[in-house]
Amino acid sequence: MSIVIIRQDDKIESWKKAIQSYDATLEVYSYLEPHDKEKVEVALVWKHPRGSLKEYPNLAYLASMGAGVDFIFEDNTAPLAIPITRVVDRQLAIDMSEHVLALILNYLKGLDTYKVNQTKKIWKPTPYKRIADVRVGILGLGVLGTQVAQDLAKVGFTVQGWANTHKELQNIKSYAGKNELNPFLNKSDILVCLLPLTEATTGILNKQLFSQLPKNAYLINVARGGHLVDQDLRDFINNQHISGASLDVYHEEPLPKDHFFWNFDEILMTPHHASVSDTNSVVPQIVENYQRMQAGLPLLNLVSKNKGY
Amino acid sequence: MSIVIIRQDDKIESWKKAIQSYDATLEVYSYLEPHDKEKVEVALVWKHPRGSLKEYPNLAYLASMGAGVDFIFEDNTAPLAIPITRVVDRQLAIDMSEHVLALILNYLKGLDTYKVNQTKKIWKPTPYKRIADVRVGILGLGVLGTQVAQDLAKVGFTVQGWANTHKELQNIKSYAGKNELNPFLNKSDILVCLLPLTEATTGILNKQLFSQLPKNAYLINVARGGHLVDQDLRDFINNQHISGASLDVYHEEPLPKDHFFWNFDEILMTPHHASVSDTNSVVPQIVENYQRMQAGLPLLNLVSKNKGY
Repeated sequence: MSIVIIRQDDKIESWKKAIQSYDATLEVYSYLEPHDKEKVEVALVWKHPRGSLKEYPNLAYLASMGAGVDFIFEDNTAPLAIPITRVVDRQLAIDMSEHVLALILNYLKGLDTYKVNQTKKIWKPTPYKRIADVRVGILGLGVLGTQVAQDLAKVGFTVQGWANTHKELQNIKSYAGKNELNPFLNKSDILVCLLPLTEATTGILNKQLFSQLPKNAYLINVARGGHLVDQDLRDFINNQHISGASLDVYHEEPLPKDHFFWNFDEILMTPHHASVSDTNSVVPQIVENYQRMQAGLPLLNLVSKNKGY
Repeated sequence: MSIVIIRQDDKIESWKKAIQSYDATLEVYSYLEPHDKEKVEVALVWKHPRGSLKEYPNLAYLASMGAGVDFIFEDNTAPLAIPITRVVDRQLAIDMSEHVLALILNYLKGLDTYKVNQTKKIWKPTPYKRIADVRVGILGLGVLGTQVAQDLAKVGFTVQGWANTHKELQNIKSYAGKNELNPFLNKSDILVCLLPLTEATTGILNKQLFSQLPKNAYLINVARGGHLVDQDLRDFINNQHISGASLDVYHEEPLPKDHFFWNFDEILMTPHHASVSDTNSVVPQIVENYQRMQAGLPLLNLVSKNKGY
C-alpha cells in the first residue's frame, strides 16, 4: 500500500517531504525512484508523462495535485474507470482572486505600460480608468470563479457571471447556458475566463465570442491555454475591437520564443503563476482522502467524468 | 469682478470652458489672454509661474486647483495674507485609493517585472506575496490617506496609520507624533507616503526613516517629490534593506532623463498621474466658494497657513 507522485517539474521531492512530515506512516515514492509498482494504490499526478499511469495495475484512485484535471482526460491511457479527485483549495481560490484583481487594476491604471515607458525613459501621462467605469464578466462560476466574482464585487466592481446553470450570488448578476452567453458578453468590458477545459470549452475564446464583447473590451485568461484561439485574439487586438489582454496560460508552456504574444504591447504575459498549489493546504486533503479510501468512505472533491471537471 | 486661471500646462481652456458651462454668468480669463488685472478677485492656480500673482492687486482669495498647496507657499511673492483654499474632492481620494491598491498588488504579484521579462522573452515564474502576508503603513491620514487606509483595510490588508494627532478609524491602528513614528515604521512592510509637503515633512523619506522599516520593505510615494531623499532610496535599494519602490512624484517633473530612477528595475515610475483633478467634481467647489465670497460667507476647504496645508 503506497503512494506515487508523478510530475515532470522539480517539485516532487518537496511534495514527498511535505506528505511524510504530515503523516510519517505513509509510504510515498517519486515515480523516478525504485519502487514496487504493484503495491501503489494512489497516484498523485500533475501533468504526468502520457502513458506513465499504465504501469500501475492496482491503482484505487487518481488525484490531481491541482484544481484542473484536463491533463488526465487528455491522456487516453489513464485509468478513467477509477475515482479521480482534484484539489479544491481555499488558498488557491484566494490567490487566484488576488491575481485577477491585480491584473484588472494594472489594466485600469496602465501600470505595465508605464513600466515599459520607463525602460525607454518616456514620460507620458495617460488617462486612467476607474473601478466604477467597467463591468466585469466572469466566465465560469466554479470554486475559483465564484471567489473572484465575490471579491471583485466587494471592491466595488459591477460583476456578472456566466455558467452552465444559474447561480445565486449576492450582487452578481447570473447568466446561464448558451442562450444567455451573448447578452452576458455584450455587457462585459473586462472578460475573465475561469472555465474548466473540456471538449465543450476548448477554443471558446474565439472571434465569434470576441465580436460579442463591447468595443475596447479587455480579456483575462487565467484558466487554460486551450480556451483561447491565439490568432483570433491577435486579429481582434489588431482591429482594435479588443484593447488588450492579460494571459497566464498558453497552449504550450513555457511559451515558445517565436510566439507572437511576446511582442504584443497590449498583452501582459505572466508565466502560469496566478495561483500555485501550496503543500501546506493541499497535503491534508490528500492524506484525508487516502484515509477515507482505506476506511471505505466516499472520497472528497471527486471529478465528474461526464462533465470532465 | 472676474476670475483668472494661472497654470502652465495645456489645460487652461478646458477648465475655463467647464467653469463657464457650469455658470455662464462668471467672467473667467486665462492669464495668457488680455484681461483687466485690477478687476480680478479670484486666482485659480496650479503650479503658476513664480511672481505671476503680484500682477493682481485686488485678489480676494487664492484657490489651488488641486489637493496640494505646497507650490503656493514656495512662491514668496504669493499674497499669503488673503484666504487660500484647496480642492477636497471625493473623486480625487477615490482615484488615489485605487492607484495605491493597484501599486500594492502590482508589487505583491510582480506584474511589472513579468512585463519587463516579456519584452526580453524571459519565462520566469517567481513566488508571489499575498494580501495576508504584508502590513501596510500609511504616512499621513488626511482626506487622501484616510480613504486609502480604509479601502485597503476593506480589501483585507492589515493597515496602520501615522499622523500628527491620533485618529479613530475602524480597523486601522493609529500612531501619532514623533515618539510613535519608529514603532509605526517598524511594522510597515509597505510604506505609503501621503503627507502634505511642508517644512516639517520635506526630506522625511530619508535614510533614518528607511533604517526603521522592516528588512525588504517596499516604499510608495504618491505625495510630493520633496518628501524623498532620492540618493537615500538608491542606497537602501542597493543594500537590499528596501526591496523596491513605486514613485508617482519627483523633485523635478518630468523627471530629467539622466536621473538614476529611470534605470532601476526595482522602481516603478508613474508620471505624476495617480489622481488628477476632474473638472466635473472640482468646478462646483470653485463656483460655490466664489458665491460664498460674494455673500460674505466663510470659504470652504481653507488652508491653514501655520500648518502649511
